[in-house]
Amino acid sequence: MRQHALAAATALSMTFGYATAQSATPLTPELENTVEALIETSLNDTVGLQFVEDLTTEVGPRLAGSEQEQRARDWSVRELADLGFQNIRVETFTIPFWSRIEDDVAITAPVPQEVVATALGGSAPTVEGGVEADVIRFENLRELAAADAATVAGKIVFIDEGMTRTMTGAGYGMAVRKRSQCAIVASEKGALACLIRSVGTQPHRMPHTGIMAREGAEGALAAAALSGPDAAQLPRLLDRGPVKASVNIQTDTRPNAPSGNVIAEIPGTDLADEIVLISCHLDSWDLSPGALDDAAGCGIVVGAAKQIMALGQSPRRTIRVVLYGAEEVGLFGADAYARRHSENLTNHVLAAESEFGAGPIWQFQTNFGDAALHYARAIQTMLMPIGVVPGNNEARGGPDVGVLRRSGVPVVTPAQNGLDYFDYHHTPDDTFDKIEPEEFNQNVAV
Amino acid sequence: MRQHALAAATALSMTFGYATAQSATPLTPELENTVEALIETSLNDTVGLQFVEDLTTEVGPRLAGSEQEQRARDWSVRELADLGFQNIRVETFTIPFWSRIEDDVAITAPVPQEVVATALGGSAPTVEGGVEADVIRFENLRELAAADAATVAGKIVFIDEGMTRTMTGAGYGMAVRKRSQCAIVASEKGALACLIRSVGTQPHRMPHTGIMAREGAEGALAAAALSGPDAAQLPRLLDRGPVKASVNIQTDTRPNAPSGNVIAEIPGTDLADEIVLISCHLDSWDLSPGALDDAAGCGIVVGAAKQIMALGQSPRRTIRVVLYGAEEVGLFGADAYARRHSENLTNHVLAAESEFGAGPIWQFQTNFGDAALHYARAIQTMLMPIGVVPGNNEARGGPDVGVLRRSGVPVVTPAQNGLDYFDYHHTPDDTFDKIEPEEFNQNVAV
Repeated sequence: MRQHALAAATALSMTFGYATAQSATPLTPELENTVEALIETSLNDTVGLQFVEDLTTEVGPRLAGSEQEQRARDWSVRELADLGFQNIRVETFTIPFWSRIEDDVAITAPVPQEVVATALGGSAPTVEGGVEADVIRFENLRELAAADAATVAGKIVFIDEGMTRTMTGAGYGMAVRKRSQCAIVASEKGALACLIRSVGTQPHRMPHTGIMAREGAEGALAAAALSGPDAAQLPRLLDRGPVKASVNIQTDTRPNAPSGNVIAEIPGTDLADEIVLISCHLDSWDLSPGALDDAAGCGIVVGAAKQIMALGQSPRRTIRVVLYGAEEVGLFGADAYARRHSENLTNHVLAAESEFGAGPIWQFQTNFGDAALHYARAIQTMLMPIGVVPGNNEARGGPDVGVLRRSGVPVVTPAQNGLDYFDYHHTPDDTFDKIEPEEFNQNVAV
Repeated sequence: MRQHALAAATALSMTFGYATAQSATPLTPELENTVEALIETSLNDTVGLQFVEDLTTEVGPRLAGSEQEQRARDWSVRELADLGFQNIRVETFTIPFWSRIEDDVAITAPVPQEVVATALGGSAPTVEGGVEADVIRFENLRELAAADAATVAGKIVFIDEGMTRTMTGAGYGMAVRKRSQCAIVASEKGALACLIRSVGTQPHRMPHTGIMAREGAEGALAAAALSGPDAAQLPRLLDRGPVKASVNIQTDTRPNAPSGNVIAEIPGTDLADEIVLISCHLDSWDLSPGALDDAAGCGIVVGAAKQIMALGQSPRRTIRVVLYGAEEVGLFGADAYARRHSENLTNHVLAAESEFGAGPIWQFQTNFGDAALHYARAIQTMLMPIGVVPGNNEARGGPDVGVLRRSGVPVVTPAQNGLDYFDYHHTPDDTFDKIEPEEFNQNVAV
């Protein structure tokens, strides 16, 4: 494999002028051999994907704060013990709990038609039996914000903004604003409910849930996302005249529900106090078993840690695997971790999260201090043979490790190709069959 | 366009030895010019696709025997009159009516998981509140038929047979047997309900409904189809131990509900008694607006007929457009037509149906008497420039014209590329956005 690494590095260097293996590397030849062996065996890993299959089959959906999330924690603790991890524990915390009981949306006039829709996480309930009103369409959140309240009051707002498909997921941040804010803005203008075109890129009749801005468990108004084809039907109807819709959302909320972070370690040796944290989140939305979001991430980090364990030599630093709880509903697990470990975050020498599906990693970004940049280059060089191009030093590190990065912990982002990630993310279609084993194992290797 | 036709025909002749434009053609140069002009304008047709958009938007789903199907007939009569068709009428008949009220399937043990499923058309209801029992899996219908009744009695049967993706749709006939027969065979062995892997090729969490064998409105047992990903989850669970499922299906049935065929004509001149019948079916399943199945077929034949009307010269023979009712639930419209017109079927000189979506037509088959084979070759030659290869003389003509073919009426099959047809067919995902306008218009032209 060394041959390939050098060839790829040289080619890349010639093309883009990156620093490559020709530069001085801080890695000893022995360490390089170990890394290459790890990559080789990880490409044929079986533990990681099995973890995903087992979690999505034996537990299924894992809504934050639910019994199923509790079951996922219990299951993970057993599984991680079976795999030989040490210092396994659950660090618990509580969250405001929200779940859907009922979320029916329908077009009632000019002709009755069913609509495939899903309540957004944190949706307020409607009155019992639902509301029915004229639909008013806006191109985007900005247009709604600019609208005269008199034209909106008493109506059901519909924001029809789409999302751009990108490899990096850059379209999500923009598209998610309407999900986050629609209920707030619509409520201020006296609307009865808010409907949005699903955040996501899938052309199928799959609605996309996800959290909205809220206080406690509940947002400002009842809100739901229509599937793409249903969102496309609405303007066709509106072109022909007034359209009435009904929205009936009933929810179950509680101020305090249990959640927790599951933690397991491979203890280090001479530098055992220094922590290399690799992570994912264990909770999922309720519509699917959350295979890509984020059982895959958990399988990838567990598989990778197990590969290191299988080397038969202990790492110098402690490798800590964290399966965060309650990510989807507001990064509660990440916050709880940062609070609980605030005294020793400086001991965290590296943090990473796998939280963008299981597509192949195409770029490896770092966020290191200047003194460690030669390590960034060394890592990037060693990853080139498996299709990973070097990235910049502005890695954000994934949602759950953002709080660590902001506290000064060095992070890396193994950037997955997410071109089709938002075809599945937060929809009923996020199922185990969507994972490509070969791509998954490239993630384990990285 | 003549140049292209000749070049394509010559190339094809050299390759496959087909008779081509070099052979004597029964078409006069004037007629060839007319055909070429028709093809040209049809490739830019706007009427056909607008018909599909309007029908799927303004009417929506059109379950056979329902109020919505009635609304579709009323709507079509108005629309066809607006387009200038003549002799517009509805030939009514009655059918046994079935519709779903409730169709919930869930895994209840070892862990509760929701299942995306849909009752098959004609499913018997379960007892109020549903049934719950162990699931027993069979690879296919044959394996179920061979099973010892003692192992099946009291259980919920699951047939896990897949479907092969083909351009011609050839996989459907095989796969549909389990949908048709599961309830009968499972019922004979004392099962409580029958579940099948959805007939279809889609990898999404979309269940596929469709009619099952039945007497009157109802089949032998409660029966439902699981989406592909849900069907894949079940064996993973069964590999780990016993699995219990619940099935709750409630239905609305009536022995006689109204349906009808909508008929419109372009009257012929000197041979007005001779009928060229082009057709589709107006009903759809209830899960979607039935854009591909078969609003598209109706738009294609209406668009094509309107193109002929727009020539400004009346055809010698009467062109009859038939929008059949109640196809999905047992070809009731086709049977009613054949019965009502049994006295003058010999006047039908040609029949065709568009009933396989809106993919590009790649082959043109005929079923003509020997004396008319030179017409088949002439038609095929003229269609080659728009990507249609000549087919054999064993056309079946589409489901609704099968009864005419069996009565001796010559038929043609403009064979569409259906490689992705069964990704949408009979699922909630059969929506207007799935139609490619350019491919649709090639259908109008053919």
